[in-house]
Amino acid sequence: MTILTAALIQMPVTGDKAHNLRTARAWIAECAAQGATLVMLPEMFCCPYASSAFPQYAEPAGGPTWQMLAEAAGENRVVLVGGSLPERDEVGRIFNTCFIFDPQGRQIGRHRKMHLFDIDVTGGQRFKESDTLSPGSEVTVVDTDFGRLGVAICYDLRFPELARLMVLQGAKLLAYPGAFNMTTGPAHWEILFRTRALDNQVFMLGCAPARDETAGYVSYGHSLAVSPWGRVINQLGPEAGCLLLEMDLDEVERVRRELPVLQHRRRDVY
Amino acid sequence: MTILTAALIQMPVTGDKAHNLRTARAWIAECAAQGATLVMLPEMFCCPYASSAFPQYAEPAGGPTWQMLAEAAGENRVVLVGGSLPERDEVGRIFNTCFIFDPQGRQIGRHRKMHLFDIDVTGGQRFKESDTLSPGSEVTVVDTDFGRLGVAICYDLRFPELARLMVLQGAKLLAYPGAFNMTTGPAHWEILFRTRALDNQVFMLGCAPARDETAGYVSYGHSLAVSPWGRVINQLGPEAGCLLLEMDLDEVERVRRELPVLQHRRRDVY
Repeated sequence: MTILTAALIQMPVTGDKAHNLRTARAWIAECAAQGATLVMLPEMFCCPYASSAFPQYAEPAGGPTWQMLAEAAGENRVVLVGGSLPERDEVGRIFNTCFIFDPQGRQIGRHRKMHLFDIDVTGGQRFKESDTLSPGSEVTVVDTDFGRLGVAICYDLRFPELARLMVLQGAKLLAYPGAFNMTTGPAHWEILFRTRALDNQVFMLGCAPARDETAGYVSYGHSLAVSPWGRVINQLGPEAGCLLLEMDLDEVERVRRELPVLQHRRRDVY
Repeated sequence: MTILTAALIQMPVTGDKAHNLRTARAWIAECAAQGATLVMLPEMFCCPYASSAFPQYAEPAGGPTWQMLAEAAGENRVVLVGGSLPERDEVGRIFNTCFIFDPQGRQIGRHRKMHLFDIDVTGGQRFKESDTLSPGSEVTVVDTDFGRLGVAICYDLRFPELARLMVLQGAKLLAYPGAFNMTTGPAHWEILFRTRALDNQVFMLGCAPARDETAGYVSYGHSLAVSPWGRVINQLGPEAGCLLLEMDLDEVERVRRELPVLQHRRRDVY
């Protein structure tokens, strides 16, 4: 048994960035105190989820949000999947970026959301991330003490190709900060996590902001963890809270032995 | 609206091949009489699902099972996805093969199961199809009056790559004759169909044999149809029966317009 204790922080996100950072930092410390060695924040945990807000809240790597994350990881000795923030690069482009830190507070990875969320459902959700954001182009896997970890963000989840690429690069655990909405959340959030887990025989973690019915974009919440057999290990509801859970990472090898789908891929055909 | 009426025949499969062929033929006629223009049979509808049975029941294309299918399609003026049978080729190899016929009774396609089912779940299902079967190597899409149809078989469902290939070749409807068991069925049957539908924004049809608790391999049943939004349109239980349903094929284009995931694929990355 190789037990990993993880914490998914389903925090409320407000328009006050400094307040959001204090909330995140306090919850990271609390989760670490409860034994978590992997801690995850939601997508856009420091910023309202709105195209107009991204340029306004954007900051570079090394800025105040990045600093808080690095310090919180190091102080609490956790691997930190730092949700995401609007990251401004040196030429002014803005990305939806997840920074990942090791227990010494060093950045060990950076994922820039690769698939931007442009959707217009009749009678449902509309959103056009590409109005203000640029897409990343890199597959993100990092090495940690507990094994290789893949990170992608929200809408990236809809693309089986990306999950497969992370797994073929050795990831045994995929973490997606995300913020599905009240149209796509009830319809798709859980089954996407379950099937990606099952297809790739990996653990899947999804971490969303708490639901705020008064927000312009209403997060579905429902942060969850799924086993390599596609079973939901645990899942929150819409409210703010922390999901603390244990995973036996050896289950990845066990499932792959019993049902060797990754070996059965037809590399001669695709 | 482009309405297609389909019928999934969840028939009982016995050890008596001639009886199975009569059952299938009668049900095809009955479904056509009820208005179905696409009819589908389950995996190994004419043969017990057992490695030892496959060589014993195997026959070539053009043999009695193939003949019955061709005649039933032509007599009833339906597109027929002929479940599957053990097909023996000219050099003696045996494939798990689905023949597809048009309403004139002409063969328009043939899918040989590409991924063989070799599984050994602790305390659950064991099976080794590759003991007696050979794998196919071709992606199968056929043109019909209602649009392009992709066909694969059972364990092929576990490979997102194959579904994607059929869809990139224009399929708007994917049909998988299958026979999940009492380990993998409850755990995975429905979510695999739902997520393949959702990822590819296609209709998905799954057709299984009725459950027979006395069989060596117990089929889960639960033949089902799923919409391009990932919604189960309808699903049978374990018992023998026919699932007759209508699909508005225009929903494929509607969903693809609202949530253009296929356009958002990062062809520069994967």
